[in-house]
Amino acid sequence: MASDSDAPITLYTFETPNGWKPSIVLEELNVRYNVKRLDISTNAQKEPWFLKINPNGRIPAIVDHQHGEFRVFESGAILLWLVQNYDPEHKLWPSDPKLQSEVMQWVMFQMAGVGPMQGQANHFALFTKEKVPYAIERYKNETKRLYMVLESQLDGQEYLVNNQYTIADITNFTWVLLHQLLDLDISDLPNLKAWLKRIAARPAVEKGLKVPQASKFMSDCLDALGKD
Amino acid sequence: MASDSDAPITLYTFETPNGWKPSIVLEELNVRYNVKRLDISTNAQKEPWFLKINPNGRIPAIVDHQHGEFRVFESGAILLWLVQNYDPEHKLWPSDPKLQSEVMQWVMFQMAGVGPMQGQANHFALFTKEKVPYAIERYKNETKRLYMVLESQLDGQEYLVNNQYTIADITNFTWVLLHQLLDLDISDLPNLKAWLKRIAARPAVEKGLKVPQASKFMSDCLDALGKD
Repeated sequence: MASDSDAPITLYTFETPNGWKPSIVLEELNVRYNVKRLDISTNAQKEPWFLKINPNGRIPAIVDHQHGEFRVFESGAILLWLVQNYDPEHKLWPSDPKLQSEVMQWVMFQMAGVGPMQGQANHFALFTKEKVPYAIERYKNETKRLYMVLESQLDGQEYLVNNQYTIADITNFTWVLLHQLLDLDISDLPNLKAWLKRIAARPAVEKGLKVPQASKFMSDCLDALGKD
Repeated sequence: MASDSDAPITLYTFETPNGWKPSIVLEELNVRYNVKRLDISTNAQKEPWFLKINPNGRIPAIVDHQHGEFRVFESGAILLWLVQNYDPEHKLWPSDPKLQSEVMQWVMFQMAGVGPMQGQANHFALFTKEKVPYAIERYKNETKRLYMVLESQLDGQEYLVNNQYTIADITNFTWVLLHQLLDLDISDLPNLKAWLKRIAARPAVEKGLKVPQASKFMSDCLDALGKD
């Protein structure tokens, strides 16, 4: 994580599921990058300089110095940009257009489903003062339902699309990894559990999950996974 | 909407913001398509035959008969597939890779932000028996915040990316159009309001919004827009 003035990418991130997606992809693709940690607990991501990079004021975002200081926000769009520009060997992205579409379908499934629903479950279960049992149950149930869809998709294959490890896996992985924060039981989802362990064991994933810095809640989740 | 056995696309949909996105795009691109209405009030989208098309059991989905009965789910992925395969003149999709990324960033912004947040606002404001003021306020405020991001992006241009009408506009449009269901005030967002009217006035949009059938709540929203 030493500063690298020649690195093609600067990544603005924080230790969250969305924040880890691009660091894992950059590690997998061996792309050099500089990291800027934006402390979302102090609302650093809402400062005017950063709104010029992401007008929505959220992490993650990247600036691509090899493509005219091109700015990309929304984690799903960042992952797509990275594989389109930095994955000539198709390590994380198939070359066939139909398989590319399948990858995008599962990326969208995460962006529109797993992320928002698990995010709301986290909010109501962990962060609100006022407890709203209806909301906690609603979002935990929906998150579990989405996990069950992933479980079915993993039936008979090691990864979500065409039995090949892709950004579809990475984008869903960082969220499912944190199921323990919600005490969500996945013991009835053996495919999902094996898939989690398979991805967590990759050296690039281990590195990417420590960006911008190691966090206790994530390493606790990794530890618990290993003990299952 | 007569059945067209030679049509390249079959669209499975219902009269909702996500359901209208592909019908608008298909109308704009003059692609022939058959429509199958899945009544989500009777959970038709959860029937086993449809789960083979969309394992997540949600509308919309398409089957592309010109590409080996290829199935696409998640509205954002459907729109991407349609422009990549049925928009050779780049009517709804730029040809430049950076501009394509910008379009995808605003599509993701809608898929991960506007859709889920406004959807939750609808749920708590309109559909729950138990009223939860905290949740209604949370999701209405977040939806309004996201609208303000769109307002800024529309400053000095008629459309979200490069002043060109694209799927980024269509995907956000179908949601923002329904702001009146939530009594969300957009009188302080003049760019957004003008953009809504501009898109609503397009003949293909008018047609697409009547698929699978005309609905009173949507036409009320269109009427109210005209009176502003």
